[in-house]
Amino acid sequence: MFKKILIANRGEIALRVIRTCKEMGIKTVAVYSTADANSLHVRFADEAVCIGPPASRDSYLKIQRIIAAAAITNAEAIHPGYGFLAENAEFSRICEEHNIKFIGPSPDMISAMGDKSTAKAHMINYGVPVVPGSDGNISDLKRAEAIAKDIGYPVIIKATAGGGGRGMRIVQDPADFKRNFDSARQEAGSAFGNPEVYIEKFIENPRHVEIQVLGDRHGYITHLGERDCSLQRRHQKIMEESPSPIVEPWLREKMGDAAVRAAETVNYEGAGTVEFLVDKNLDFYFMEMNTRIQVEHPVTEEVTNADLIKNQIEVAFGEPLAHKPLKMRGHSIECRINAEDPEFNFRPSAGKITAFHLPGGHSVRVDTHAYSGYVVPPFYDSMIAKLIVSAPDRLQAIARMKRALEEFVIEGIKTTIPYHLQLMDHPAFLRGEFNTHFLEKEFKYNPNP
Amino acid sequence: MFKKILIANRGEIALRVIRTCKEMGIKTVAVYSTADANSLHVRFADEAVCIGPPASRDSYLKIQRIIAAAAITNAEAIHPGYGFLAENAEFSRICEEHNIKFIGPSPDMISAMGDKSTAKAHMINYGVPVVPGSDGNISDLKRAEAIAKDIGYPVIIKATAGGGGRGMRIVQDPADFKRNFDSARQEAGSAFGNPEVYIEKFIENPRHVEIQVLGDRHGYITHLGERDCSLQRRHQKIMEESPSPIVEPWLREKMGDAAVRAAETVNYEGAGTVEFLVDKNLDFYFMEMNTRIQVEHPVTEEVTNADLIKNQIEVAFGEPLAHKPLKMRGHSIECRINAEDPEFNFRPSAGKITAFHLPGGHSVRVDTHAYSGYVVPPFYDSMIAKLIVSAPDRLQAIARMKRALEEFVIEGIKTTIPYHLQLMDHPAFLRGEFNTHFLEKEFKYNPNP
Repeated sequence: MFKKILIANRGEIALRVIRTCKEMGIKTVAVYSTADANSLHVRFADEAVCIGPPASRDSYLKIQRIIAAAAITNAEAIHPGYGFLAENAEFSRICEEHNIKFIGPSPDMISAMGDKSTAKAHMINYGVPVVPGSDGNISDLKRAEAIAKDIGYPVIIKATAGGGGRGMRIVQDPADFKRNFDSARQEAGSAFGNPEVYIEKFIENPRHVEIQVLGDRHGYITHLGERDCSLQRRHQKIMEESPSPIVEPWLREKMGDAAVRAAETVNYEGAGTVEFLVDKNLDFYFMEMNTRIQVEHPVTEEVTNADLIKNQIEVAFGEPLAHKPLKMRGHSIECRINAEDPEFNFRPSAGKITAFHLPGGHSVRVDTHAYSGYVVPPFYDSMIAKLIVSAPDRLQAIARMKRALEEFVIEGIKTTIPYHLQLMDHPAFLRGEFNTHFLEKEFKYNPNP
Repeated sequence: MFKKILIANRGEIALRVIRTCKEMGIKTVAVYSTADANSLHVRFADEAVCIGPPASRDSYLKIQRIIAAAAITNAEAIHPGYGFLAENAEFSRICEEHNIKFIGPSPDMISAMGDKSTAKAHMINYGVPVVPGSDGNISDLKRAEAIAKDIGYPVIIKATAGGGGRGMRIVQDPADFKRNFDSARQEAGSAFGNPEVYIEKFIENPRHVEIQVLGDRHGYITHLGERDCSLQRRHQKIMEESPSPIVEPWLREKMGDAAVRAAETVNYEGAGTVEFLVDKNLDFYFMEMNTRIQVEHPVTEEVTNADLIKNQIEVAFGEPLAHKPLKMRGHSIECRINAEDPEFNFRPSAGKITAFHLPGGHSVRVDTHAYSGYVVPPFYDSMIAKLIVSAPDRLQAIARMKRALEEFVIEGIKTTIPYHLQLMDHPAFLRGEFNTHFLEKEFKYNPNP
């Protein structure tokens, strides 16, 4: 096994990786920016190397400094965590060149999945369902109308160069197609200097359900069931659970098979996540594959008893995965505790934590790099803790999450704890009836309950 | 279900019960001595009643004050925790008289198991193996020698009125019997004013293995596997685990059956523990039955996924237990973190906790009433936290416990954390080879490693 691993990340995920390394008897090297000198990942690692000033581009994204830190400390492998360089094919390639094992897939696998149109083409070839649409860009109105009719309304017109909703139109009725097609092209042209658009079926009120996959170097790829991540704000996941309230065993098997097929298109190695949209008929469509560990991986660990970081490290070392049937037990929920003020549109709330008391007891897990006296720096992601609970069923898990949220004391900064507490009481949430628009369209947070 | 429960206890077990009540939607009443006003069980309960000064006999053992607190707050049931009044038949009877449901067995069941000679007689009648010995006291040397020969050497001669090792003799050889018999009687007479002795087979280097049982009002009694509690200092358990390293499925079935039979002798209702000694041939002998929740119950919860406090409350309300086969998953270990100084013979270390940081992450559970700034009072049990981990197998659980112990920061007082850390590295412990004498005879703690 590896003797020493460098963790090219910060915060709770750096600590998460260090914990598993310790349990495996592997020495660890933390890297940190000057803003993170007092973070727990620095304290709990065997060695720590400062790699630059607070700005990520000068520290956690600075490939040469991280490679140099690995060289200085004789680290044989680098775990990238999530975010930062985790899905950077170039970084994976540079690690290879320096004879440092990148704990994640090869540069080719990362690239294949990072390019959405390549990935989608892969999926179609391998029979993984994707959102039906035009095969690439389309500029001819008649052909566009024919495609829209073919895939069925509602459809969405999207600017190729788009983002942030500009050059994007949802069309419910064929009579409105021409007007929307023209205005989308116009808007795209003026916003991005490129009028090209493409068409996809518009999935109404979908759920975001993703499948955890694992692959080894010996050609074995398997899955560990799903996570429901439909509760999002501005495309940021807020709360995740496993199993999904809408996934019955037959659907799990079908989605699991599709996800394994998706991973097989690139002979995937390591831990990965295949994200799907699921519509109201329980039809599902490939969205993208993330070639890294996800923030929400603990809910899968809770119900399957796996240690996904351990799996990543073992697979990276070349060990084969155990071939065994999927067994899920109970239900698990994760709440992301962010240093944000839910009363004022979730504005970041950096600063010193003056009191910090963790919830505990039966089936309560906290992954956090924070502590009493910790100063939340303003430079990074606002997530300061993940609170994960599990229980025999979903309603018991929700009850447990509520009491754990009530026990969690964080003073000195604002957090999303009160937001989560109200969410746990929402009738539609309790029934498991929600989709990706639920938090922004249905759930209203009351700052003064 | 009950609407409100009073918890007649303090510390981590009071908090443990409150947590499950919250999850079940049951209101809670804490009682506390003036020394515990700032304890977390007071903070997290819905109501709290001060029942007296620090001394237990004037507060936590003061039955009438606890009954009055229940009456004032309209609590319908009382959970006694462990220790204090948990196995006090009189308290259970007084609760009954006041129409308050005692969450535990009936006064008769408590009495039947509390009197060791009655309990032993019960067990013999129901075919539960007990340590063979004289049937009660014996004063005639010839008869005593015949019994000793019959049960087989080594035997132990014990003073009926004894305690603390006085009037106690272990005899390895028949030639030494007379001398030891006479001197035991003499010592017993002068120490206790009663020379009566009885004889039992001496179990050499036994393991302490106990079975968790559960019974409901509808006559169903089942068991949840075993806990190995052989690691003891002065008859105090220090570390517990489930499953036991020596218990194979066939032995679990045999001991489980015996434990259920033991509980059936009194139509047991509630959670209980049947304690056995296991000798080197894996023969096992009934020691006693504890008619309460045990400190070490979480290791059973971890491997079986049960919530034993929930089971206790449901059964007390009259609900039937689910009839399902025992399924154990993985391995769980508990370390008792005591406010004691292992360097100086475990002398108590009360006082203010100046820094308190809990370990976290995958499969780490902490049950504690302490926090940063908490003052450990000198009046009660020295246990301030239970650290529980689980993992797929025993060696992984030990590795996880080590890293969790290393993360656990408690400053301002001395604790047993460094003692546990060294224990986790002991070769015999790692091999699972230890007995009830291991900690006192084999394991040497080094305060300056």
